Amino acid sequence: MSKSYRVAILGATGAVGTELIELLDRRNFPLAELKLLASPRSAGKTLPFKGEQLEVEAVSEEAFKGIDLVLASAGGSTSKAWAAKAVAAGAVVIDNSSAFRMDPTVPLVVPEVNPKAAADHRGIIANPNCTTILMAVAVWPLHQVQPVRRIVAATYQSASGAGARAMEEVKAQARAILAGETPTAEAFPYPLAFNLFPHNSALDERGYCEEEMKMVNETRKIFDAPEMQISATCVRVPVLRAHSESLNLEFSEPFDPDRARDILARSPGVRLVEDWQANYFPMPMEATGRDEVLVGRIRKDLSHPCGLELWLSGDQIRKGAALNAVQIAELLVKENWLQPATAAVSS
Amino acid sequence: MSKSYRVAILGATGAVGTELIELLDRRNFPLAELKLLASPRSAGKTLPFKGEQLEVEAVSEEAFKGIDLVLASAGGSTSKAWAAKAVAAGAVVIDNSSAFRMDPTVPLVVPEVNPKAAADHRGIIANPNCTTILMAVAVWPLHQVQPVRRIVAATYQSASGAGARAMEEVKAQARAILAGETPTAEAFPYPLAFNLFPHNSALDERGYCEEEMKMVNETRKIFDAPEMQISATCVRVPVLRAHSESLNLEFSEPFDPDRARDILARSPGVRLVEDWQANYFPMPMEATGRDEVLVGRIRKDLSHPCGLELWLSGDQIRKGAALNAVQIAELLVKENWLQPATAAVSS
Repeated sequence: MSKSYRVAILGATGAVGTELIELLDRRNFPLAELKLLASPRSAGKTLPFKGEQLEVEAVSEEAFKGIDLVLASAGGSTSKAWAAKAVAAGAVVIDNSSAFRMDPTVPLVVPEVNPKAAADHRGIIANPNCTTILMAVAVWPLHQVQPVRRIVAATYQSASGAGARAMEEVKAQARAILAGETPTAEAFPYPLAFNLFPHNSALDERGYCEEEMKMVNETRKIFDAPEMQISATCVRVPVLRAHSESLNLEFSEPFDPDRARDILARSPGVRLVEDWQANYFPMPMEATGRDEVLVGRIRKDLSHPCGLELWLSGDQIRKGAALNAVQIAELLVKENWLQPATAAVSS
Repeated sequence: MSKSYRVAILGATGAVGTELIELLDRRNFPLAELKLLASPRSAGKTLPFKGEQLEVEAVSEEAFKGIDLVLASAGGSTSKAWAAKAVAAGAVVIDNSSAFRMDPTVPLVVPEVNPKAAADHRGIIANPNCTTILMAVAVWPLHQVQPVRRIVAATYQSASGAGARAMEEVKAQARAILAGETPTAEAFPYPLAFNLFPHNSALDERGYCEEEMKMVNETRKIFDAPEMQISATCVRVPVLRAHSESLNLEFSEPFDPDRARDILARSPGVRLVEDWQANYFPMPMEATGRDEVLVGRIRKDLSHPCGLELWLSGDQIRKGAALNAVQIAELLVKENWLQPATAAVSS
């Protein structure tokens, strides 16, 4: 008889939360119980799971009693407020927020890249940022063959990165513009429909936004490559779901594009999408709802002898968030790393 | 009494053609006559100019008789078919197509960058590609102070780059998607509304599309910098009008971002748009209908000691096409370079 687990989803009503519920079902995660937690505001709502309606409970210390695993996706402040309490109650927390990602005692894990890092958890494992995960899945297989020295990234990020409300806002804006009306913006600082703008997260003193620095710092941590040089420009575009990225990679020696293609064609989590005759490459439309990161348009960089250009699209909510978290949970189960670690965390 | 000129617009009914008509009026170009030319299919249509309705004529050799200046914007094959005939009839042709841009006997001109090149025309002057013009206006002032060695560009190109029909198609696709229907695509190979894809122009053997190679080759020609290293990834995004570009520039020495900012703030054709407190930078929504290229978010490249990152948005139809052509025409008038050059061309 295989073991099963009592799982709680914190932030169950959000875009990532609902995806987590669907993935636990679809991937047959060994559940003994599924508890849906959210802010008191959402308590009492019901969400479908395996043909039943599960009621959402308000998060509380009491709610974590007996829970083995918490999948948290309710934002940084909620994670900061509740993660230690969940761990104290005996659970392991896989946290989708940025709260603990750069904490040196917290593993930051992309299962295709650094699964072993998860073994060292002290109760909390962090799920990286969406743009970082998508880039990491595509770049890691090449980095294994020949170290990447430098990445210049430009992103094309969908509204889903700002949640379900932002996706609805973009649709409402598009309707207004098509009707000749002036669109309004609340989830975003400016209208996004038929427009785009650099990512609106907080800027540091050098002019880089948080989203960009996540790509820099998280990638270095996941790859255990503190010396890797990364510069990113993150841009929100009027796509509903799935992010795209243009990546310029620099190696220490020339990297043959065909070799890169061969490697990526058999890399986990990657789907090579390239039809040069049809000018057909990864698109958010086709990445939406898929598990894999679509990678293609692999070309020799015209401007540097050791450069490679590639293009990717990946579902930001799926592999960029919920799927990666569920894959970490599956890894913990498989490796028997799901034991509580209260003592270590409380020290 | 100042001189005035007989001008013909070839391709008058297109997106750039109608913008040309508007700009000639708004900028008070010294017109003795304005003739609107198009394919026989569009002959007989009327377009407004200075309160009158001008009738569109089918293009013919006869139509160029007595014309001093042709502004051609009807695609490469039309320009190839008619430019030499217009020149033979005594006109100077400013051609917006790609037909003659890389011809070593044809000047390729951005008036803010290389106005003097226009003096050497032999009847035809080429207007660069939109993405090239926008990049050239922003990069040239920096390149003058310290040569740019390398550019890695990622573009965010609006539907207007494929003409008025493409803009309508994106709107129709958005309407369909919002109504829960499946969008259709004709002007583009894939639906663009709420989606994006790498630029669909023809790919070369290295995997670069024509649009990308225009950024490489035209920039080198305009800057007279054949050694400049450029790699570009061009992407179509669901914006109606105005392109954006993320540019990573590498110099031979570090370039202070504040110095770059000061230079760009007083550069012709550039409008510096940066409010770091408000996270407010160039957006296509605000570049639309403006003459200037909006440039901002100037930052030190985190991945290279001599790198600079910048971001721009510019109206693809305005400065990216029609305005640049009209500025060339104004330059020819001002410098008295509008003399026909039949002999030289026919040699």
